[in-house]
Order: sequence, then C-alpha cells, then structure tokens
Amino acid sequence: MPTTAPQGAKAPRTAPRRSAKNTAPRGGIDLGGTKIEAIVVDSENTVLASARRPTPTAGGPSDVAAAMVEALQQACQAASVEPAALHGVGVGSPGVIDGDGAVSSARNLPGWDGKFELGSALSGQLGTKVLVGNDVQVATDAEFELGAGQPFESILGVFWGTGVGGGLILGGKPWIGRGGAGEIGHVVVVKHGARCPCGRRGCMEAYAGRAAMEARARRQVNKGKHTDLFRLMEERGRTRLTSAIWAHALEHGDKVATKIIDKAVDALGAGIGSAVNVLDVEAVIIGGGLGVRFGDPFAERIAAAMQPHLCHDDQPPVVRVAALGDLGGAIGAALLAR
Amino acid sequence: MPTTAPQGAKAPRTAPRRSAKNTAPRGGIDLGGTKIEAIVVDSENTVLASARRPTPTAGGPSDVAAAMVEALQQACQAASVEPAALHGVGVGSPGVIDGDGAVSSARNLPGWDGKFELGSALSGQLGTKVLVGNDVQVATDAEFELGAGQPFESILGVFWGTGVGGGLILGGKPWIGRGGAGEIGHVVVVKHGARCPCGRRGCMEAYAGRAAMEARARRQVNKGKHTDLFRLMEERGRTRLTSAIWAHALEHGDKVATKIIDKAVDALGAGIGSAVNVLDVEAVIIGGGLGVRFGDPFAERIAAAMQPHLCHDDQPPVVRVAALGDLGGAIGAALLAR
Repeated sequence: MPTTAPQGAKAPRTAPRRSAKNTAPRGGIDLGGTKIEAIVVDSENTVLASARRPTPTAGGPSDVAAAMVEALQQACQAASVEPAALHGVGVGSPGVIDGDGAVSSARNLPGWDGKFELGSALSGQLGTKVLVGNDVQVATDAEFELGAGQPFESILGVFWGTGVGGGLILGGKPWIGRGGAGEIGHVVVVKHGARCPCGRRGCMEAYAGRAAMEARARRQVNKGKHTDLFRLMEERGRTRLTSAIWAHALEHGDKVATKIIDKAVDALGAGIGSAVNVLDVEAVIIGGGLGVRFGDPFAERIAAAMQPHLCHDDQPPVVRVAALGDLGGAIGAALLAR
Repeated sequence: MPTTAPQGAKAPRTAPRRSAKNTAPRGGIDLGGTKIEAIVVDSENTVLASARRPTPTAGGPSDVAAAMVEALQQACQAASVEPAALHGVGVGSPGVIDGDGAVSSARNLPGWDGKFELGSALSGQLGTKVLVGNDVQVATDAEFELGAGQPFESILGVFWGTGVGGGLILGGKPWIGRGGAGEIGHVVVVKHGARCPCGRRGCMEAYAGRAAMEARARRQVNKGKHTDLFRLMEERGRTRLTSAIWAHALEHGDKVATKIIDKAVDALGAGIGSAVNVLDVEAVIIGGGLGVRFGDPFAERIAAAMQPHLCHDDQPPVVRVAALGDLGGAIGAALLAR
C-alpha cells in the first residue's frame, strides 16, 4: 500500500549506487555566476585534475561557452587527456535547461535572457558528447551518490551561497517537476516581506542569500551602523563580501554581521522547515559557499531554527553539511556524462 | 537523463489508471474531526450508498471505531450488502498511520493521543480486511485517479477546511515521505507570525484554516467590529462558522468576513506558491469544505494570489477545484481496499 508505508529503504548503502559503464575519463563543468569550475574524473569519480576561470561578465552565451571550453581544456591538459578522448562532458548550468542541452533564462550570466544551444556549442568545440543539467540539481545528485546524502533515499539539497538554490532526491531519484523544481530559495518566509534579488518579496533568499545579506549590510552602514565587513573586503582586494569575510567578521564578534547572519539562519529554519513539512525528506544537505564555509556548527543552528516549524517534530530530518565541498557541482556534472 | 527531461507524461489519460481486481463492492470510511462518512462503492467506484454520523466528541478511540462500524453498517444496509461480503474496507484517518493500520496522534479525535490498532479493531467487527491511509492523502489519490487531477501526473491536493491539509502525487505515485509529508497547512508564510491551532507560529493554516478564521472573527467582534457571521451561526443553529455561513457573509458584503477571507487567500497564495516553487507540480487541486463551497471563483483567486510568488511564473500550475466533493475522502479510502 503506497499510502500506508513510508517510501524508500533507510538502511545505509554500502555498494555504489550505479556501476560505471565505461573506464574512460569524463569531464564536468560547473557554470556559476562568478566562476567556471572544470574537472576531469576517472571511472570511479576520483578527480584527476581541475581548472577554474572567472565567468565572463560581458559579451553573451558564446563567450561564456568559450570560457567553459578553455577551462575544460586546461583541466584536460593537467590530466594529460585530450578533450575528444573523454567519454563525455557533463555541465551543471543555471537557468532553464531543456532535454537537448539548450539553456534559457540564465539571468545571472551575461546576455543570456534568451535560449542558447549550450550542449551542442560545447560538443562541437570539445569533440565529445555534452550533457547539460541544472547546476543545483547535479550538485544534489553528487551529494546523494557520493557525498553526505549517501545513507538516505530522500534528500533536500540546500545550496547557501550568493543565492539559495535547492535540489531534490525523492525515493532515490531526482525530482525536477516540469524542469523547475527545487527553488527552495524562493519559498516565502515573510508574506509581503523584504525584496528578494529575484524581484519578489519575502523569499528565504531575501534574508539568507549572500547577495541580499551584502545589500542589507550596506543599508546598515548607510544608517550609520559600524561593521568591519567592508573594510575586510577592501583589505582582501575583493569586490563582494565573500563567505570567508562573513566568517571572519562573525568570529570577531562584528555586531552587524552577527545580526544579519542570525536573521539568515532564522529564515533558513522557516523556509527549510516548510519544505520538510511538505516533503518529509530523511535528510537536508547544506552546501554552497556559505554552507560549506560555516560547516557543522551552522548545520546545527539551521536544524535548531527549523525545529519549531516542524509538524512532525519528533522525527526531524538529519541536517548535514555537503561533503564534496566546492567541487560538488562539477562532480555532479561529470556524473551526467556516464 | 533524469536531470534534463521533465518527469511524467502530460497527455490526458483516456483509460482508467488501474483496472479493478475484483467485482465485489468495497467500503470506504472518511474519519473526520466532525463527521464520519461511510460509503459502499462497486468495482467501477460508483457510490452505491452512503451514511454519515457525527464523530464522537467524548470517550476514546474504541468509541470512534464503534461509530465508524455503525456508519459503514448503515451504508451497507442501504446498499443491500453484508459488511463481511465487501471485498474490503478502506479508511482515511487523521494522525500518523503505520503500515499495519494503527493510528497514533490523531489529536483532533477524543482521547487519541496514543496509538490505537484501528485497522484490526474495525476488521474484527466488520468481518473483512481493513486498510488505513492518511485522510488527506487518500482524498488526493481519489482526485488524481477519478477527479480533477486525472489529466496530470503530479499534483498537490490542498484541502481547505477546518485546517488546511495537503497530499502529493509525484510522477504518478503518492509521495508520503517517511509517512508525514503533505503538511501544506504548516508551511510558514509569516515567520514569527500569527499563532496556529497547531501551536506553532505563522503557518498558512493560522490565516486560512476555518478554525483560525473563526477565532480571528471573534477577536474582531471583541474589538467592537461588526459582523453578521455569529448572528448567522445562531440563526442556523450551528456551533461553528461553517463554510456555508462564510459564503453567505461574503455574498452579502460582510466587511469582517471579506477581510479575513482576503487574508486567507493571500496566505494560500504564498504557501501554495512556496510549495510549487519547490515541487513544480503540474496542478493544484483545491478541496475541503471551504474549497469546494467557494468553488471556481476562489480557485481563480488563489491562482492569482500564488502568481507573484512563483519563480517560474511563465508556467504556473493549473489550479482546479476538487471534483469529487464531500465524498472524495471516502471514495479515496475505498480505493485503498482494491
């Protein structure tokens, strides 16, 4: 009876989820708003080499594709393999991805409001097949298969960075809905609340996303509040408040930073708690720049902030930090190319 | 590629989802906080007879079970069938249901904080097998299979009544998580907001549930605001503000009622919109006492209230009113017993 028995086995898994179908190395490219991370992995998903390039901030999709090709070529060179010799290349991309590898509405990338045939553009230049998936979903897939999600059959991946992205594994399989599922960052936590970078109001990301928190910090400075955040940014020659800067400010008791992060954790607790009430997943995996940087103590804080919102508070999900770190997105992308 | 292609076919279905395995009639019992609805259906799920009894407000689980037996016996009598001749009986119950038909934590039923072996208690008295499922999930299953959800493979059922319950069908199958999924009523729409009947704060149900709206109306009266709601209640000899009373007050321009319902629709828009952002279902089916009573115009209002919160606002889900009406829960329960 599907309606009377919980879905999915809970026993920890000891064997790999799928056996690799080939022994040739594969490529993985994580296309982010700030950087492009390219890797080459072997058939056991061990990372042989990686390369990083900044994401172009001007031009259009074909310039971004060119930078992706360069990053992968560089990783291939370091791994002593020709791109054309790869079994295939997987790409994790923002935006809406169709079944043929075309990407549209990747609004945080330059000139990418329309549709661009990313998969075939890359495939033509690299000489191997290219498969494109959603960036956050492939990172969730990677955590499920190789990282912190391994013991579970249903997980919610929450990628806490510049924005807050999400991915779902339900009953052992990715759930993408009609292609747009997993938008945990845009769960409403305060109806008619703060303006979100997405343009809507009261989204979790409006309180917890790095970009929104930076804007909040600037408003505090404009109100005459003191914070070391922007001084740290200048000293480190950065143009934005990185997760390292936030971590440093928190460690040194910066009041503005502490208050903003407290509010972020509070929002994450409400938003993730809402999603858990609807989905009752076994585990929540916290990744992303801030999630990985802040680590276990913050996973515990998020779990505590979630608890008062849970309907079934006697069986909260496990909350864990993503285990694959910064390369999780690229590793998940490489999994696409099996 | 599961991560690049949308899940589930979208073509409307013409054949029934499953063929019935037997021709004997089946029973279905919807156990609600106010009433027990029992039906007998034939193998084509046509309702042959129904009977209704008030849910006992005192005593304990065995008294509730006795009333359920009486209701089903009455329906059987009207259908000229012996309970023991039924192929089986399905039950939709609140609370937490385990695989053996035991129900625990059915807190809106008398003396039911602990665990009670409902399935075996009923089976012993009725002389046929009894299968127990979650009340809201079986109602969602019924809408999916026989009602407004038929054209879709992924739906969110929202049952807007005394509380706000939810059920999920994802990729053509019920999704219940670890047994506790679908709690759409307790999605947080205002962090640290209004107190919900569940004891938590800011849940959607704290603004949209009939019980919470009634409490809100009483507070308005205590503040000296005028409303006809309670006068209508007394005139009709009711002890609570039924959906019919709310509908009447709205039709007559009652300002307090209008404002409370506006707030409810606003909360439903934010909460359902949040769930759609996470799940990207094809359709939202609005049932429950208020949902069915208010009908299509309110399904449209809820869709409009949801729209500003949707990430993928160019492909909103279809929003439809439940097609099986008051008997949907009992019909869904009877589906369990196939």
